[in-house]
Amino acid sequence: MSRDRFVSSLNNEHVKHLLSLQEKTRKRKQTQTFVIEGKKEIQHAMAAGYRMLEFWMKEDQKDPFFDKAEEVQIFHTEASIFEKLCYRKKTTKIVAVAQMKNHAITDLAIDKKQGILLVVEAPEKPGNIGALLRSCDALGIDGMLIVDPTTDLYNPNVIRSSVGCLFTVPWATASLEEAFTFFKQNNITVFSAALTQAAQAYTAVDYPQKAALAVGTEHSGLSKKWLAEEAQQPIIIPMQGQNDSLNVSVAAGIILSEMVRQKNM
Amino acid sequence: MSRDRFVSSLNNEHVKHLLSLQEKTRKRKQTQTFVIEGKKEIQHAMAAGYRMLEFWMKEDQKDPFFDKAEEVQIFHTEASIFEKLCYRKKTTKIVAVAQMKNHAITDLAIDKKQGILLVVEAPEKPGNIGALLRSCDALGIDGMLIVDPTTDLYNPNVIRSSVGCLFTVPWATASLEEAFTFFKQNNITVFSAALTQAAQAYTAVDYPQKAALAVGTEHSGLSKKWLAEEAQQPIIIPMQGQNDSLNVSVAAGIILSEMVRQKNM
Repeated sequence: MSRDRFVSSLNNEHVKHLLSLQEKTRKRKQTQTFVIEGKKEIQHAMAAGYRMLEFWMKEDQKDPFFDKAEEVQIFHTEASIFEKLCYRKKTTKIVAVAQMKNHAITDLAIDKKQGILLVVEAPEKPGNIGALLRSCDALGIDGMLIVDPTTDLYNPNVIRSSVGCLFTVPWATASLEEAFTFFKQNNITVFSAALTQAAQAYTAVDYPQKAALAVGTEHSGLSKKWLAEEAQQPIIIPMQGQNDSLNVSVAAGIILSEMVRQKNM
Repeated sequence: MSRDRFVSSLNNEHVKHLLSLQEKTRKRKQTQTFVIEGKKEIQHAMAAGYRMLEFWMKEDQKDPFFDKAEEVQIFHTEASIFEKLCYRKKTTKIVAVAQMKNHAITDLAIDKKQGILLVVEAPEKPGNIGALLRSCDALGIDGMLIVDPTTDLYNPNVIRSSVGCLFTVPWATASLEEAFTFFKQNNITVFSAALTQAAQAYTAVDYPQKAALAVGTEHSGLSKKWLAEEAQQPIIIPMQGQNDSLNVSVAAGIILSEMVRQKNM
């Protein structure tokens, strides 16, 4: 049986399955598969060891790159159908279905790069998660830990806004308890971005060899439960304006880059 | 004639006018008016001297705050109509129509706060413009200059994502030529966020008393025309990842906060 198929109907079972993976968290969880749009993103995922199951492209599309993935089922479709499968209709040349990976906290390594971990409690907006992943990639952060996740990181909007950094940055999910056990076992000092005046200015801290920066949700910051943990130190970006607020990915970028600056002095 | 009116139809001329101001840049430009949603945002605008023309609220809504604005026309509507007028249907209590202000570059002052200006070339995404304004507010930046604007800053999405910082941060628009004339006349050194390896690391620069940070569009960075100007110095955030990209508001936040850190050492 050839691994190439031609699909000419939106009612095709494989098309319907792909669309349901894009739209439904439940479907992704059930099948442990998800969708990646764009060659660059797919290449990042393959380099990170993600297993590809399906490639989708227009009927006239060819790329020597696909020949490297011999076990992948290839679907060709008419242009009009392909456009229904992707968000960036004009520029996308390939869409893939891939197998999820496990993201256990115990797999996170904090001593491979700079000894810095980003911890995000219950992030909601895919755009913010994507921007945080981009910052981790660009600044060489060791990994990103999502505590009490509320948004599926395999959501297409996360992948898109991360520009593929979902695959280049090691990440894991965990409960709050698991997180603090991990920090303790690995001798990681946790700095929590807080809005309390009792917190130390982020520029006045001497960051230790292994440090984690924790940030909360866009709306309400870190939870009371988090801030009640003894094994964390509140830090703050001194606010000089009329609105006590920074975009969460901007705030994280500012503090992470100061941690990186200190490490490289 | 009372300044209070009750509106019970979506076909009402004033309702239609308000909706057109939300949707159409052209309508805003023609009338030099725009819409502000939310009490906090309106308060920021009033504190900044914006003239209010209309307040809109549900029929049962009262607030002593409104009494301070005696010349403002007040429209009460049924809840179902009010919800059509606002984005945050559950939380918004008041929507205003206000008069635009002039934003001439010559009105920008760079010596009132920290001597730092943010310059953004042709930004497109309202969410990014909003996040940049929030960063300027929080970090105490003197002002934001938009060069060759492509997006109307009175777009409701900018106001919303700026959380009202469109009103707390002094801003202006200008052409590239006007901008460089202004920098020269005011003795402002311009640092351009570039992706060229010939640029100096942003942490290695000694920022002078009056400095501007320039950032470009999300997609392609600063234009060649900009980078060809002799009166600017390229700086870079060293990229340590696999993707050479940071969200533009994150990149600006990182560099601006380093400029602020140095000024306060």
